[in-house]
Amino acid sequence: MSSTIYLDNSSTTAVCDTAVKYINEALISYGNPSSLHIMGMEAEDRLNRTRCAVAKMLSCREDEVYFTGSGTEANNTAIFGAVMARKKRGNRIITTTIEHPSVLKVFEKLESEGFDVVYLKPQKDGKISIDELNAAVNENTILVSIMLVNNEIGSIQPVRAAREAIIKNNAPALLHCDAVQAFGKMKCSVKDLGVDLLSASGHKINGPKGIGILYKAKNAHILPLILGGGQESGLRSGTESVPLIAGLLGAIEELPPCEKFLSDMQKLSDYAKEKLQELGFVKINSPVDALPSVLNVSVLGYRSETLLHFLERKNIFVSSGSACAKGKGSYVLHELGLPQNEIDSALRISFGRFNTRSDIDALCDALCEATKTLRGRK
Amino acid sequence: MSSTIYLDNSSTTAVCDTAVKYINEALISYGNPSSLHIMGMEAEDRLNRTRCAVAKMLSCREDEVYFTGSGTEANNTAIFGAVMARKKRGNRIITTTIEHPSVLKVFEKLESEGFDVVYLKPQKDGKISIDELNAAVNENTILVSIMLVNNEIGSIQPVRAAREAIIKNNAPALLHCDAVQAFGKMKCSVKDLGVDLLSASGHKINGPKGIGILYKAKNAHILPLILGGGQESGLRSGTESVPLIAGLLGAIEELPPCEKFLSDMQKLSDYAKEKLQELGFVKINSPVDALPSVLNVSVLGYRSETLLHFLERKNIFVSSGSACAKGKGSYVLHELGLPQNEIDSALRISFGRFNTRSDIDALCDALCEATKTLRGRK
Repeated sequence: MSSTIYLDNSSTTAVCDTAVKYINEALISYGNPSSLHIMGMEAEDRLNRTRCAVAKMLSCREDEVYFTGSGTEANNTAIFGAVMARKKRGNRIITTTIEHPSVLKVFEKLESEGFDVVYLKPQKDGKISIDELNAAVNENTILVSIMLVNNEIGSIQPVRAAREAIIKNNAPALLHCDAVQAFGKMKCSVKDLGVDLLSASGHKINGPKGIGILYKAKNAHILPLILGGGQESGLRSGTESVPLIAGLLGAIEELPPCEKFLSDMQKLSDYAKEKLQELGFVKINSPVDALPSVLNVSVLGYRSETLLHFLERKNIFVSSGSACAKGKGSYVLHELGLPQNEIDSALRISFGRFNTRSDIDALCDALCEATKTLRGRK
Repeated sequence: MSSTIYLDNSSTTAVCDTAVKYINEALISYGNPSSLHIMGMEAEDRLNRTRCAVAKMLSCREDEVYFTGSGTEANNTAIFGAVMARKKRGNRIITTTIEHPSVLKVFEKLESEGFDVVYLKPQKDGKISIDELNAAVNENTILVSIMLVNNEIGSIQPVRAAREAIIKNNAPALLHCDAVQAFGKMKCSVKDLGVDLLSASGHKINGPKGIGILYKAKNAHILPLILGGGQESGLRSGTESVPLIAGLLGAIEELPPCEKFLSDMQKLSDYAKEKLQELGFVKINSPVDALPSVLNVSVLGYRSETLLHFLERKNIFVSSGSACAKGKGSYVLHELGLPQNEIDSALRISFGRFNTRSDIDALCDALCEATKTLRGRK
């Protein structure tokens, strides 16, 4: 069987060697970070080494970095926590219609509890309108939550503009950014972004599954979602997963500089777009200025699932929309105004640092073969 | 340096070889369980193999087993989830004063929101009174949460009696049991216990840190705490930590049968009690019928922290109270009515399957030396 061609790096990524090494070290040295003895302190040291590395990436302080069990938990903690802490100061909360479900479902819950939710719709380029954002933020706004990079199409949102809108409109709002698809791939300085809260995840950057990151600015007060022994400065109780947190450090250490990653990915993406468009039946859905590691396309005339399963038989792995949507038609593409046939035939190709041009060649060859083998729906 | 004598197994445990092996296998095969392709299905298979093993231990169905990021998260999900789902049916919730902080803090939060909380106090033997329990449960009771084994003293609570009280008093209550210290160590059949919800954790049974278990009876409806992509049948969104869940299976496969574990631990505990009492300055705080792997003692005349640090210099690790309480005087011993000097001098010695009699000999020798070296407070 041919070797695996993994083009689904926005779903999850291969765990890199350094991550595996650090996980194994932390499995052997097994102290509980809350224990008062030296074994506990050794475990705590591991947490702090990773905290320090994350802080460096986000340009923040170490004590502003908290570990959670997933990016989803980080999003839930940030949003519920901010709203519960600020609900006396206003009733409006703002997000976009193309957030990840771990943001959207939280907003829907808060809407059902009576909060005034504004959902900003993206324009054709996958970005929200800054004018609409400015108009939405008012003196009752207590939270704005905007993702940095969309997980299905890669569009990059003007997060910084939300900070400016908050200042201009004198809103008592915290600004949260779901940076799960951006972290480790582009510069994510919390200062440049102007955010109070930011979420990220380990398994999107060649780290293990089960570790999330929450940045919380020192002066931003939010309530914890999970209560108990007071770990993570009381913001997230529960014994920390020392092995996974150690693994996250390994993943961070192996990361190429963002500039290099972006330029490598841009080359791959440009090559892929050229080759795919040459096929004659592929439409590019991602905007031209998207994060180059995410490339959403429609293979006109074929259903996403049919193609996905055809490709997996060739050992080529892509995604139909997001892994978290598990088979439903993409609401993100729907929000962009794509016609149903383009939504039904969408594939998300997502690159990582282990991909090469030959992976794209193999994908294009396989798609070409698919059109000869599969019955289309034209 | 002498080899490590680890007598702090109620805080956390050494990760066993099979757990490490399975974790590494799952780190290599890195699919996202939510992905539709074969790599996703392989990951999902791993989750289901563990789910099946847990179900067997709890005598429940596989689809009644959910994975969380910690035992703490399982407790939070069970309690908040049950109360939020049932709040229209009553206002009373019942627990004990010696629960783990991940239960107590949740009850305190709910109390601050207006719920009528009854905290049952333990008797001298560390167990709650069944009469008091019966008197507390009324027609407005929507949740009873009682731990199976106390983490500091090892007392075993009459959980089954709570089910009977719920039936007798015709209460619309769900019954939750925090079984973190019991799971894998004594029989935990959800049917025998009569519980609707039960929490457990991987790192207390020689599995990795960062994986919790929630049992939820099929017909018990609770609301999720973490929202998003709908993983774990919608009860706990967020990409599952496949490596840790695989590691949990390894830990379960290595577990000795409960009968053997209990009889081995009873022998160790009896030996320890005899040797410690021979020293002349040690008082046993755990009740005689406690789970034998937890042995709480007071080393009269010496402060817990002083002893703990003296012992760690000899490479012997015990705990002063629970790891989660991090240095505060034990509220559990306080609830048992122990005088302050006994609380201040308490040590928790907790055994695991890797301990031997020679570990206890070393501990007793070291305690004897401590009395000659340290300045007591007599």
